[in-house]
Amino acid sequence: MSAPVTGQGGEEPGETPAPSAPAARRDPSRRALLGAGGAGLAALAAGFAGGFGAARAQGAPPATDDGHVVPFRGARQAGIVTPAQDRLHFAAFDLTTSSRDDVVDLLRRWSLAAERMTRGLPAGELGPVGGAYDAPPDDTGEAQELRPGNLTITFGFGPSLFGGGDIGPDRFGLAARRPNALADLPHFPGDTLEAARCGGDLMVQACSDDPQIAVHAVRNLARLAFGTAQVRWSQLGYGRTSRTSSAQATPRNLFGFKDGTANLLAEDTAALDEHVWVAPGDDPAASWLAGGSYLVARRIRMTIETWDRSSLREQESVVGRTKGTGAPLSGGQEATEPDFTRTGNDGRPLIDPDSHVALAHPTANGGVRMLRRGYNYTDGSDGLGRLDAGLFFLAFVRDPVRQFVPMQNALAKNDLMSEYLRHTGSGVWAVPPGLADGADYVGQALFES
Amino acid sequence: MSAPVTGQGGEEPGETPAPSAPAARRDPSRRALLGAGGAGLAALAAGFAGGFGAARAQGAPPATDDGHVVPFRGARQAGIVTPAQDRLHFAAFDLTTSSRDDVVDLLRRWSLAAERMTRGLPAGELGPVGGAYDAPPDDTGEAQELRPGNLTITFGFGPSLFGGGDIGPDRFGLAARRPNALADLPHFPGDTLEAARCGGDLMVQACSDDPQIAVHAVRNLARLAFGTAQVRWSQLGYGRTSRTSSAQATPRNLFGFKDGTANLLAEDTAALDEHVWVAPGDDPAASWLAGGSYLVARRIRMTIETWDRSSLREQESVVGRTKGTGAPLSGGQEATEPDFTRTGNDGRPLIDPDSHVALAHPTANGGVRMLRRGYNYTDGSDGLGRLDAGLFFLAFVRDPVRQFVPMQNALAKNDLMSEYLRHTGSGVWAVPPGLADGADYVGQALFES
Repeated sequence: MSAPVTGQGGEEPGETPAPSAPAARRDPSRRALLGAGGAGLAALAAGFAGGFGAARAQGAPPATDDGHVVPFRGARQAGIVTPAQDRLHFAAFDLTTSSRDDVVDLLRRWSLAAERMTRGLPAGELGPVGGAYDAPPDDTGEAQELRPGNLTITFGFGPSLFGGGDIGPDRFGLAARRPNALADLPHFPGDTLEAARCGGDLMVQACSDDPQIAVHAVRNLARLAFGTAQVRWSQLGYGRTSRTSSAQATPRNLFGFKDGTANLLAEDTAALDEHVWVAPGDDPAASWLAGGSYLVARRIRMTIETWDRSSLREQESVVGRTKGTGAPLSGGQEATEPDFTRTGNDGRPLIDPDSHVALAHPTANGGVRMLRRGYNYTDGSDGLGRLDAGLFFLAFVRDPVRQFVPMQNALAKNDLMSEYLRHTGSGVWAVPPGLADGADYVGQALFES
Repeated sequence: MSAPVTGQGGEEPGETPAPSAPAARRDPSRRALLGAGGAGLAALAAGFAGGFGAARAQGAPPATDDGHVVPFRGARQAGIVTPAQDRLHFAAFDLTTSSRDDVVDLLRRWSLAAERMTRGLPAGELGPVGGAYDAPPDDTGEAQELRPGNLTITFGFGPSLFGGGDIGPDRFGLAARRPNALADLPHFPGDTLEAARCGGDLMVQACSDDPQIAVHAVRNLARLAFGTAQVRWSQLGYGRTSRTSSAQATPRNLFGFKDGTANLLAEDTAALDEHVWVAPGDDPAASWLAGGSYLVARRIRMTIETWDRSSLREQESVVGRTKGTGAPLSGGQEATEPDFTRTGNDGRPLIDPDSHVALAHPTANGGVRMLRRGYNYTDGSDGLGRLDAGLFFLAFVRDPVRQFVPMQNALAKNDLMSEYLRHTGSGVWAVPPGLADGADYVGQALFES
């Protein structure tokens, strides 16, 4: 149907797809350059623009506007308490290698590329201009001229990476270091999970205010993983459903209601320590995770056509809040604490005990709270005239077994909202702490200490 | 698994799901209000915010910032020469009714709702506050507090709406008015179309700079269509791949190359008259379409993992332009006209005759040009470790048979790029002219004149 393709690359599945990454590791000045910020990075950026098409390329360097850059390095990974960006590309990867060294090499290359991309630089370092023309470009290119839009790239490790016990084989000698709380979530009442949207050895959460930046990030990490890992499933989210900073207004989910009113906020560091960050003493076998967290993901399809035909009374009763302002049905404003004891003239509680707000409230769950960071999604239609749309639920917790599992059991059994929800995807990952200034790659303490 | 749902609506498939629309038609002041702009609309908006939750709602009125509003009415439908917005939700609908009156009623309700939403108002008019609480809300709510982001909603009619001849049954007495150029596209070499992503009686293209606004628009039109039409397929696009105004920079597609460099622009009205707008004499049987256009849609999956492993030399050879600046390989800048006769030292043309730019150029296609208005899409993964990503190609033309079909035949047969493309969805729709100030609904001339 067309002329044969004569380019190189791609014909030999075993070859290294990213010539830039080994070169980067050999370059002793690399980390210094990245650490230096401004001038060095501008030079790199100019080099990139000059690289495409050798001497013929004369494009403007990519934007590296500090106002749109979230630092990649720090005590915590970015993308957790970072004010929630507008768009998401989430991906779960499965390792296709049986070599622990390959996994470490991948994490090293991913960390380098992630740091570069969050700064608005291309994913890979350029080799010599003459050689680059006959090699695959070390960045796929579609993010040029775009700002990083507060890009964050957050990595996590799934139960299957470790194996051991009921989890599966210990492929990489990591089973003894698997955190106790890291196991596949149990079956919940009403679950209609699709295996192709569950689990994954590795997790990447890319968030940006520009969807093309978030998609570009995952794509380039997938490219760098060729031969070592491949995408198991992925999910785009186009509208955030939570606020993670007091400076953000509460957004709305696809039920049309404000979502995340009572979310944990970045400013409340005491609550984060209590509910989000793994403390040094939490799990002696998994000391590498101290300072990190866990991410629970649930792809929750909403039966929006049915919802859209229910009365406003029904909708507000299910949620337990008004649709307009988000105030609890017991009265007040959005921020008013719900009063579950207050009754109406008929003697019944103004907030239904089986409403979502009642069942999800900390008072109904032993004081448990979570840092929610989910997104609205719409994945076309289902062939039956219905949009495939809903909430991609993301929550960071200190312990999924204590925090998420009991709450989801209660919601799945009694929440009036369950009638309008179908859980179709699921996963849990340990999220290691951030990359310190001297460290080489995210998760280093798991493999090396 | 949960308490029974007691709300009304949805249990009776035959009932009218949109109490607002008939009410709106009964209100003689409605059109005057919409025409009046400013004050009247602000009052409507305030009424909306007050409506949710009756007297308890105290939210801010939705934004109606004129800087983000594209007028819905005009000689042409908006969303064609409108500067391409950043995000897309596209939907094809099939009619489930056999009544011509139902179709007219739907178009009337859609036109009302579309005009409201493009102004930043909710899709439907509120009934009395007391009654609204026990009825479904007349807007799904998730676009509250968001700006319309230059929302445009563009409607089209597919071949199957008309029927006749090989097309199918003449369900609505429209076969005699079907334009000659409106028929399903022929099979092209290499087509791998999925029936569930092809065709549709009606087409809605919603574009906005905010994806939540575009998705909200399609969802609310689908809600208003309940009982009359249902979504056949839909597609989200997150990044534009064309510019339609000289004020816009050329964006990049997922091959990482600038796309749409030589696109028709809104400012070139003579070229639009020649290549985009249907002229009064074009088709005597379809005079209702004069001033309108045709939309061709193709969902083109890119095998991006293979592309990403091909050399820069191969990629630029396939495209015929440099990846950095987008200049033709014959030299110059992005805007430089390609010189297909210029040869290198080896005597071969610098631009491969089978490159995309050579085969798609007007000189290779009898001077044919199109107004391209496509978007990048990424729909998760395919279960084989590959992203389902590519280009949702949209092009407005004066005659798809003369303009699109020959070019696509040539590209499918010879384009070096075909190796990296899979056409998985397809459709063509007649796009009627815009809604004049005195007119009631888009496409009125088809049904009433």
